[in-house]
Amino acid sequence: MSKQQKPIDTLICASWTIPVTPRGEVFEDFAIAVHQGRIVDLLPESEALQRYQPDSHYTLENHALLPGLINAHGHASMSLFRGLADDLPLMEWLNDHIWPAEARWVNEAFVADGSKLAIAEMIRSGTTCFSDMYFFPEVAARVAQECGIRAQLVCPVLDFPTVWASKPEEYLEKSLKLAIEYAEHPLINVGLGPHAPYTVSDKPLINIRDIASEYDIPVQIHLHETQQEVDEALSKDQQRPLSRLAGLGLLSDDIHLQCVHMTALNEEDIAQLKGSAASVVHCPESNLKLASGFCPVQTLLDKGITVALGTDGAASNNDLDMIGEMRTAALLGKAVAQDASALSAPTALEMATLGGARALGIDDQCGTLEIGKSADIIAVDMARLNTLPSYDLISDIVYSLSSSQVAYNWIAGELKLEKGQLTELDEHALRENAISWSEKIKANK
Amino acid sequence: MSKQQKPIDTLICASWTIPVTPRGEVFEDFAIAVHQGRIVDLLPESEALQRYQPDSHYTLENHALLPGLINAHGHASMSLFRGLADDLPLMEWLNDHIWPAEARWVNEAFVADGSKLAIAEMIRSGTTCFSDMYFFPEVAARVAQECGIRAQLVCPVLDFPTVWASKPEEYLEKSLKLAIEYAEHPLINVGLGPHAPYTVSDKPLINIRDIASEYDIPVQIHLHETQQEVDEALSKDQQRPLSRLAGLGLLSDDIHLQCVHMTALNEEDIAQLKGSAASVVHCPESNLKLASGFCPVQTLLDKGITVALGTDGAASNNDLDMIGEMRTAALLGKAVAQDASALSAPTALEMATLGGARALGIDDQCGTLEIGKSADIIAVDMARLNTLPSYDLISDIVYSLSSSQVAYNWIAGELKLEKGQLTELDEHALRENAISWSEKIKANK
Repeated sequence: MSKQQKPIDTLICASWTIPVTPRGEVFEDFAIAVHQGRIVDLLPESEALQRYQPDSHYTLENHALLPGLINAHGHASMSLFRGLADDLPLMEWLNDHIWPAEARWVNEAFVADGSKLAIAEMIRSGTTCFSDMYFFPEVAARVAQECGIRAQLVCPVLDFPTVWASKPEEYLEKSLKLAIEYAEHPLINVGLGPHAPYTVSDKPLINIRDIASEYDIPVQIHLHETQQEVDEALSKDQQRPLSRLAGLGLLSDDIHLQCVHMTALNEEDIAQLKGSAASVVHCPESNLKLASGFCPVQTLLDKGITVALGTDGAASNNDLDMIGEMRTAALLGKAVAQDASALSAPTALEMATLGGARALGIDDQCGTLEIGKSADIIAVDMARLNTLPSYDLISDIVYSLSSSQVAYNWIAGELKLEKGQLTELDEHALRENAISWSEKIKANK
Repeated sequence: MSKQQKPIDTLICASWTIPVTPRGEVFEDFAIAVHQGRIVDLLPESEALQRYQPDSHYTLENHALLPGLINAHGHASMSLFRGLADDLPLMEWLNDHIWPAEARWVNEAFVADGSKLAIAEMIRSGTTCFSDMYFFPEVAARVAQECGIRAQLVCPVLDFPTVWASKPEEYLEKSLKLAIEYAEHPLINVGLGPHAPYTVSDKPLINIRDIASEYDIPVQIHLHETQQEVDEALSKDQQRPLSRLAGLGLLSDDIHLQCVHMTALNEEDIAQLKGSAASVVHCPESNLKLASGFCPVQTLLDKGITVALGTDGAASNNDLDMIGEMRTAALLGKAVAQDASALSAPTALEMATLGGARALGIDDQCGTLEIGKSADIIAVDMARLNTLPSYDLISDIVYSLSSSQVAYNWIAGELKLEKGQLTELDEHALRENAISWSEKIKANK
């Protein structure tokens, strides 16, 4: 070690580095210096080798480094229901299959095992941060913490009783307790999750607004998922769901409202979003699979509205693959805009990274590869038949890359995936456990 | 070897076998007996072990056997242009990028190298048969023959000169020569490929009809790819492109017309299709990426029209992954039909196998796992995090499977992929060759 060299934890050198900011930039033969979980430098490999003395040194030829992907909406433990009931109309799917299965099976053990399965699949496919909305969020928070993955746990709030709570006051009390418990945690955030406008009445929504504002807690809600939802609200409340939320004060500057789905939007809705701190979480594969409708993503982006990307739960997707989701978003966005130049590859990549960080209110922490941010980094192996030859690396990543090419995944500087293998989670045990759950569920169906 | 045991080439035993016919069927612990390139038996593994003495014996736990996938439309050698020009409006993409690149670079060596790269990617991702429409089809035919993959080579026909021929008569002369050369080949078929209604005038279309009818040669054409194509035809010819083809006799009982894309369809178009031997080749990812429009797949299927599936070329997709394409088709088909029960998983799987075989007129040879058909078989490894747990195997294959899980690929009984590795093609050499082409092309852009 030369006198000039500075000791650091990790140096990651790769053929290409895509920082996302600046947009469209690709650095060749760069290195990322990581120390105490943070990116401390981003520089040409040749300079890095002179300047730093790392404990761990990775040289990744033919690999591209990217910010870890952010899955901004999902129901992690529902991975245990993956494929339980497909190809069904939405209400039949919910009423006859998903809700009865949840009532029968969802408990703390289910959430612990399902969340761990989901986290393993997400780490494997390049996700470093996910948002989760499900029962027993305190269990999912504990599992996420154990796995060392960044997460936003959105605590459900509904008018009616579920396995987790009996009435809105109890949902909110448990939610606030969890939010306070994790207030200082470096990786775990807690949010409030009013399920949807049609399952939460005005009073709890007002309480949610007040708590969110007072404690600076984000709010995530399924919103305008279908035209039917909007039509029924118009008939019941004489206003659109988004207008109702606006009237209740949820579309103000100090509420980080994350509106999930947003397929049935008119100009008034978009103007309302634009004037607020709200963001949209686009879940294209779930919207397609449930025939929910089409989110006008490019129009929202043109107005300066933040759009993040989510897989939704594995029961309506049926995977948690953000690389596939990014591709679907880019492809579908063009068809919906009727413009092949809409939702370009750099835009889709930004949605899957920085867009997610902005929506979750953590873009000071992650979402790009920049000095000072957390070392949430993935490396993808580009030397495969389906990503060759290469003329435009960001195009290749969005339109041709398969999640099986994700080779490394660091979260806050900790290596979670190495050469495509999980470093900490036991894949074999997870598989056996998933099979054991499905055997129980099938036997009692 | 017991006296009762019959010697055969290959016995493939797997946890699950999905024959596609009967629709939705999943056999557990079955075996496929293969001899001289054909499926000679399909039976419970325990019986197969008593009855047959195979030269090669595969026992594939946690794997599912499926008919090989059929990619019914593409431009294989364009893999060398993968990602060359993305996120552009269709006419700018064609006029300013693809056509100039083709004029500058496409020759016999380009087609040989590009086809081989495409074939390797297709074998790797579970395709056993592909249709190709490109210049120098005699070169692509030779490469397909060398690789031992089943193929339909569609010879292009245009009004104007290209690198392959100067006028319609020359295109047709070369096409017929190739068709006659391969007339008796077990794996290679040759078809006629009028590029599109707007690039081929009536006279060559009538000649194509006559040759197709006389020699029983299939015809594949890009048709109703966009609403603009239909509008311009209405303005120029006072009729819709499909009606014009019908008027020229191409929608008759004795012409195997394969209509590619078909996004802009009205009731009259669908009625015309229904009354003919024509089939539709749906390319959902290309249609999305080029913002071409939406093909009403479930409506076509409801009318009994054969629908096959294609990736289109890697310049407008940007991969040749039929497992991804099947998933996109199933997801998009629901959104387009506004019905979550449309385009079910078994329907999507049928489109990607039997549908393709029917469209290409080879369903007596392949498309299902049935006794007497060619042993075009793939095995997919279901024991991965993204396909567990399992409640419905066909759902898992359509909605959760990644093409990286394709482990084995047999074409006419010959093993082309084993444990995810190409058995004959040299992946390293293919990668180096692809990079060398892109370096030349980039240097001269």
